Amino acid sequence: MPVEIITSLQNPRLKRLVRLRDRRPRDEERAFLIEGYREVRRALERKVALGELYYSPGWFLGENEPALLSEAESAGTKLFELSKDAFAKVAYRERPDGILAVAPQWRRTLSDIALPADPLLLVVEAIEKPGNLGTILRSADAAGCDAVIVCDPVTDIFNPNVVRASTGVLFSLPCVVEEGIAVLAWLRDRGIRAVATTPAAPMLYTDSDLRGPLAVIMGSEQFGLSDLWLKGADQCVRIPMAGQADSLNVAMAALVTLFEAVRQRGGRA
Amino acid sequence: MPVEIITSLQNPRLKRLVRLRDRRPRDEERAFLIEGYREVRRALERKVALGELYYSPGWFLGENEPALLSEAESAGTKLFELSKDAFAKVAYRERPDGILAVAPQWRRTLSDIALPADPLLLVVEAIEKPGNLGTILRSADAAGCDAVIVCDPVTDIFNPNVVRASTGVLFSLPCVVEEGIAVLAWLRDRGIRAVATTPAAPMLYTDSDLRGPLAVIMGSEQFGLSDLWLKGADQCVRIPMAGQADSLNVAMAALVTLFEAVRQRGGRA
Repeated sequence: MPVEIITSLQNPRLKRLVRLRDRRPRDEERAFLIEGYREVRRALERKVALGELYYSPGWFLGENEPALLSEAESAGTKLFELSKDAFAKVAYRERPDGILAVAPQWRRTLSDIALPADPLLLVVEAIEKPGNLGTILRSADAAGCDAVIVCDPVTDIFNPNVVRASTGVLFSLPCVVEEGIAVLAWLRDRGIRAVATTPAAPMLYTDSDLRGPLAVIMGSEQFGLSDLWLKGADQCVRIPMAGQADSLNVAMAALVTLFEAVRQRGGRA
Repeated sequence: MPVEIITSLQNPRLKRLVRLRDRRPRDEERAFLIEGYREVRRALERKVALGELYYSPGWFLGENEPALLSEAESAGTKLFELSKDAFAKVAYRERPDGILAVAPQWRRTLSDIALPADPLLLVVEAIEKPGNLGTILRSADAAGCDAVIVCDPVTDIFNPNVVRASTGVLFSLPCVVEEGIAVLAWLRDRGIRAVATTPAAPMLYTDSDLRGPLAVIMGSEQFGLSDLWLKGADQCVRIPMAGQADSLNVAMAALVTLFEAVRQRGGRA
């Protein structure tokens, strides 16, 4: 199939790609951007239906890009070749590698989560920085979480920097967006213990029993957890901190807590 | 004292500030950049001798900048006011806040490390990404490490992005740069147990005894640890990993290992 070549910086497709960096157009169109060879490769591996793939050979960093393009085309993705200038306009990364795809957003609900006997879940509330949210997804993946539940999001999970910082985990780890109050009720109904982390808790996280059905709850960077969780959680715990008050950010705190749970649950993530 | 005002983009001082982003001029001059209100505030708190401070009120984000400037001036720092355009030229951050200082580099050696009875040290080898090195310093600070030893650095500790990602920990936590072979000998001489993390180790990090005099050893992003450490360490351990192979980067692995050490050593960082 002949590939459409785009060189004009005024092409409406380019303008759309730039618009998709922002949340409102992203939500209206129910689509999102996946930039970079590694990320698009992982999306394909995870059977994410890429609607379109924009590429620009002048930016390629490796030799495997043509194989990726063929694979995407076989999976039904429409390809567009961009001039170097045109790609520079649509790339949001500092160092583009000539690969940018558009995929439809998905929406998972709490009932989509496949719960094993002793689920390990991570619940995050109102995370602000896309880099933190993406890193949190990586941490949850490394710890073998069954799902991540994003409550009352300030940053949406389809933000380009979440996609990037998650290194593709967004495509594989079940990620549900839901109101906190519904999540708390859902956890209670299923007998899943909610353990909230907050610097003010007297109990150390290592003294809490993190075995069995468990949801680790983390608050926002600036405000921490809301009263919903501070009062509604089964237990509040803190991570001991030497040094500066802000040496652990929310993503680091989530990682430490999840790996303590992994240790208590038998040591194998 | 009247403050020199710089508006010309050709001013040699501005050119020098831009040059200091690169390692060679930074090392030749034995100076480095500290950008941002928070970072400069922490440098002052830690008695870092700021040679010069460049500021531009048009970029200020808060109201406390004048107090910071007075404080710096009282500490002997020379102030320069920049026009908005001039500051835009020297800022390396995406969102500048109108504060940029230059400080002399320092050099600490192994003999400068004050060793308590049971030291907790972090040794990192050939870390490539400044963001990782800065985050590692934060983690070491949070875990109460007595020092961080940077072996065979690919990225120097005075890289502007290390300064930034460390959120000022670089100014407080003792950080020594030294050849790996000298560090290994130094650890052995002092009876400090070297525990190296590598994905190939059969032993889980949680099964290793991390109490007593301890150095946690972490390798580079791309190559992991060199044979010096893989063969020379007292023990090799791994972190269990679910999910993608690269869900934990070196900074995350360091954090997880250090907080397990904190737990074993009594739970209070």
